[in-house]
Amino acid sequence: MEEYMIKPIGIIRSELKNIADAPNFYTEGAPNAWLEIIPSFHDGLDRLQAGHDIIVLTWLHLSRRDVLKVHPQGNPAKPLTGVFLTRSPDRPNPVGLHRTTVLEIDGDRLLVGPIEAIDGTPVIDIKPVVEEANDF
Amino acid sequence: MEEYMIKPIGIIRSELKNIADAPNFYTEGAPNAWLEIIPSFHDGLDRLQAGHDIIVLTWLHLSRRDVLKVHPQGNPAKPLTGVFLTRSPDRPNPVGLHRTTVLEIDGDRLLVGPIEAIDGTPVIDIKPVVEEANDF
Repeated sequence: MEEYMIKPIGIIRSELKNIADAPNFYTEGAPNAWLEIIPSFHDGLDRLQAGHDIIVLTWLHLSRRDVLKVHPQGNPAKPLTGVFLTRSPDRPNPVGLHRTTVLEIDGDRLLVGPIEAIDGTPVIDIKPVVEEANDF
Repeated sequence: MEEYMIKPIGIIRSELKNIADAPNFYTEGAPNAWLEIIPSFHDGLDRLQAGHDIIVLTWLHLSRRDVLKVHPQGNPAKPLTGVFLTRSPDRPNPVGLHRTTVLEIDGDRLLVGPIEAIDGTPVIDIKPVVEEANDF
């Protein structure tokens, strides 16, 4: 099948500097982070406001793409499970989904939170949360 | 920034044959469809069962990637809005999110529904619905 090129629209700036800081994507207490949007995509943010709930799509660039089964949450007591039944970052196309809230907008930078994503992670899309998107 | 290659894991087989059949991604009454998974990714489905709620990620291959503002739902009465506040398929990285349910599993084919996606759309990932993913 044809392949497609993902072109990041921005990057995450977070205090989470490596995977060891974010061992479990279900952990509560994730920090806020800045999304730095590339200026050429600025118009795509038009009408976005603080308070909006969004889904940030990321490219989990540190992931392994050749893994098809994992022990869920890295727990060897849990049986090997197909990655498509898990939120493991290791998967053929490592797209991350992060539901979060816009806290502040400063030009091309968005403060969002909470969000469990490592500093330097590419942002590939932003979508409104569906049930609140009726006006759009 | 670095770019990344999306490699589809499967394809959608639906009675929705073109965009005119699916004019509004908020429409109710979407049909069921088959996801044909490429056999080399079969192990990623291990432990998946009928009844599971999933999020199917697609690559909306018919989309325009150079659009940053749209009239929401194609309605010219609605003000031009940044695509990141909309579910428009036209956006820089046209990843589609489709929450749906697994109805039947037949080898490498999954019957899912309802799902508003056009026949031939590449599937790039499958994830569990988060609130039901605590066991994974």
